[in-house]
Amino acid sequence: MIGAGTNPLAAPLFSMPFPAARRLGPASCAPDSSQALAPATAEANPPPRAPDEAPAAASSSSPAIRATSQLSRWSRSRTLRSGRRLERTAVSSAAAVTKPPPPQQQQQEQPPSLLYDGAPAAAAVGDDDDDVCVAERDAMSGKAIYLVSDGTGWTAEHAVQAALGQFENCLVDRGCAVNTHLFSGINDTDKLLEVIKQAAKEGALVLYTLADPSMAEAAKKACNFWGVLSTDVLRPTVEAIATHIGVAPSGIPRSSPSRQTKLTEDYFRRIDAIDFTIKQDDGAQPQNLHRADIVLVGVSRTGKTPLSIYLAQKGYKVANVPIVMGVNLPKALFEIKQEKIFGLTINPAILQAIRKTRAKTLGFDGYGSNYAEMDHVRQELAHANQIFAQNPGWPVIGVTGKAVEETAAVIVRIYHDRKQKCSMPRISKRVAPVLVYDYTSEVVSS
Amino acid sequence: MIGAGTNPLAAPLFSMPFPAARRLGPASCAPDSSQALAPATAEANPPPRAPDEAPAAASSSSPAIRATSQLSRWSRSRTLRSGRRLERTAVSSAAAVTKPPPPQQQQQEQPPSLLYDGAPAAAAVGDDDDDVCVAERDAMSGKAIYLVSDGTGWTAEHAVQAALGQFENCLVDRGCAVNTHLFSGINDTDKLLEVIKQAAKEGALVLYTLADPSMAEAAKKACNFWGVLSTDVLRPTVEAIATHIGVAPSGIPRSSPSRQTKLTEDYFRRIDAIDFTIKQDDGAQPQNLHRADIVLVGVSRTGKTPLSIYLAQKGYKVANVPIVMGVNLPKALFEIKQEKIFGLTINPAILQAIRKTRAKTLGFDGYGSNYAEMDHVRQELAHANQIFAQNPGWPVIGVTGKAVEETAAVIVRIYHDRKQKCSMPRISKRVAPVLVYDYTSEVVSS
Repeated sequence: MIGAGTNPLAAPLFSMPFPAARRLGPASCAPDSSQALAPATAEANPPPRAPDEAPAAASSSSPAIRATSQLSRWSRSRTLRSGRRLERTAVSSAAAVTKPPPPQQQQQEQPPSLLYDGAPAAAAVGDDDDDVCVAERDAMSGKAIYLVSDGTGWTAEHAVQAALGQFENCLVDRGCAVNTHLFSGINDTDKLLEVIKQAAKEGALVLYTLADPSMAEAAKKACNFWGVLSTDVLRPTVEAIATHIGVAPSGIPRSSPSRQTKLTEDYFRRIDAIDFTIKQDDGAQPQNLHRADIVLVGVSRTGKTPLSIYLAQKGYKVANVPIVMGVNLPKALFEIKQEKIFGLTINPAILQAIRKTRAKTLGFDGYGSNYAEMDHVRQELAHANQIFAQNPGWPVIGVTGKAVEETAAVIVRIYHDRKQKCSMPRISKRVAPVLVYDYTSEVVSS
Repeated sequence: MIGAGTNPLAAPLFSMPFPAARRLGPASCAPDSSQALAPATAEANPPPRAPDEAPAAASSSSPAIRATSQLSRWSRSRTLRSGRRLERTAVSSAAAVTKPPPPQQQQQEQPPSLLYDGAPAAAAVGDDDDDVCVAERDAMSGKAIYLVSDGTGWTAEHAVQAALGQFENCLVDRGCAVNTHLFSGINDTDKLLEVIKQAAKEGALVLYTLADPSMAEAAKKACNFWGVLSTDVLRPTVEAIATHIGVAPSGIPRSSPSRQTKLTEDYFRRIDAIDFTIKQDDGAQPQNLHRADIVLVGVSRTGKTPLSIYLAQKGYKVANVPIVMGVNLPKALFEIKQEKIFGLTINPAILQAIRKTRAKTLGFDGYGSNYAEMDHVRQELAHANQIFAQNPGWPVIGVTGKAVEETAAVIVRIYHDRKQKCSMPRISKRVAPVLVYDYTSEVVSS
């Protein structure tokens, strides 16, 4: 199972059609006909760049990389979608030459020999199809991380965002730039290898979530071949679950028709929660407070709205009630179950900073309004704290320096803790979904 | 570095204080004083259960598990938060005996000997402090997965939800139940080991995201010792990034004061996007359509609202405009940049099913309304398709069988593709955040 020659997973690498090649390099951007009609500028024909920290894989010592028909296909579909003319793409495609692969240097792992040719990448520079796209240009100025997914890519994105938190000091304070590039819907090996080739060119790290084991294996092999550092983000988790429940993973990507989203109770619960939460925003309809799962109370800009929305997406019906000096809280607030009410508070200096930015966005810069004045901010927070002191049953959560999802985690933990009465605060969910309407056996098209 | 004796990461396991022990087992729930006053029932004193598929680790052959003072601490804080009386907790704590650890069986890895005693778990049954919490009872009826995090736990939850998609058939069709239990904010070894002990008792898989390497190592060791299957969800991703950017991970958990959320441009952009999107929901304020990044058009219940909200959380200002028979679309829709407009369509049978459920939720069951009638649904969709045909620049996305995040992925891909003009559709982000207000160097409290 290990050697490439005997590994069935390697098969797709050697059975793909590559009918045409078009040169990559800075040339990898689709043509923009509006620019093509303008005189050539330095920007339109950028000089070859030597990125400061390009890893060995991206240097000229590695096999040079050329594009396949896939690129033309993507370029063409993009151009079609953008409503621009296709002429230059067609010319480029016609001019491209399908070269046979040159003799390959010996490697321990058999290379995907159909995928490269020996011409140096720099040779592509000067092609008049060379407009570097913004993302590719940005990538040159920092370390690139490619997220490659056969589905939405949100899982890879979420995991990488969390992982990058471990390098926050470097990213924020010391200014070392990282660019992430999410490639979603990569559901065939052809597309996959294009992306990995581009990663090699940009010296990118490739982090992938690919359900189909043959795709995951192809990614691994191609990354090894081109010297691209890579990791399968979800594999250890999937394998642990498989061992635990004694069932093999299906290997079916999220986008497959057999994995259509089912209309479950949970689906409708979430949709209802979002509908409810939007309608209840900013103290609207206090007569509905009793229908909420969670009620948030706080002064303006303590993050009630984004927090409500975040919780709604997790299936909780949330209402939020603003504390405004001189305005009484709605009577209904004190008539509902008090255990579902949460107070939000914040450091006055931070609240002032947030309000100042908010005032700018709204187009008033503070003149004629005390909204962002420190004295007013302090008074309003003192008023809020007085209300909280009168209602000791409400947990009061400081949001200073907390991201929305952190405050949400605290609230959800307390909510479930009060409800479930477990010794250890936990949020439990049953994963066997209850179907409300099963259409997956029907033949449907939309 | 491998042996426990020489591994510095093992140190925290042996230096923790365990001043008191309270028996676990079904007894692991906090007391509820209201139940304590009622006569003992079968429910209050459940018989010992023998879970059908309990792994060896949870059987009587493994070291029995007892609780530490941590449990009492959690129970007490929970009781305090819930507003119930503390008397019985105090009594239980006082009655608990701190036993010295018995002689330990020889193991290759040195056990955390202070954490267990030799009494069988079943001996705890009969303790009148034995009310099993709902989550713990549910866990008995399916395979339990413990998600353990020193932060919010949302990353672990997201990863596990995605991974469970690989076992969908088993979960939905064959009815094999899995329960997930999220333990967030586990930021000391004491709490961590309590959770892992409970996992051993429930025969749970432990999936953890722990930034501090000594915590991660403690989790690994404790799981090995108690025979609990476990995986570090984020480790491979963090290590790959560290290698790629040449910087060691900080090891600082999300909840640490030094990792307070900073007020960056991105922060304000997201908050603004959510505010904007809520105000624009359901065709409100068409005069603001030009300010939107993305405009969604479709008939009722094609998922415009949840989709808008999902996209808003990713930082896009979204407006949605309903298509209703007999009501003209707002003129402003045709005056804005057409490339930011997306049509949504759906299979009529599915739309009818969704509307029927919606009608029930709203309290009208279809009588006196054609909202969920098939003829009306078909007519309305045909009307929508006619509008889409007249506006060929709008990409039309079928939402049948797609989760909100899948449709969002398609839209975001096209959006960036049109904007960035890259050869390969990608969503690129710069990860070096721009600070708007830096308070992290100030001493703040909230």
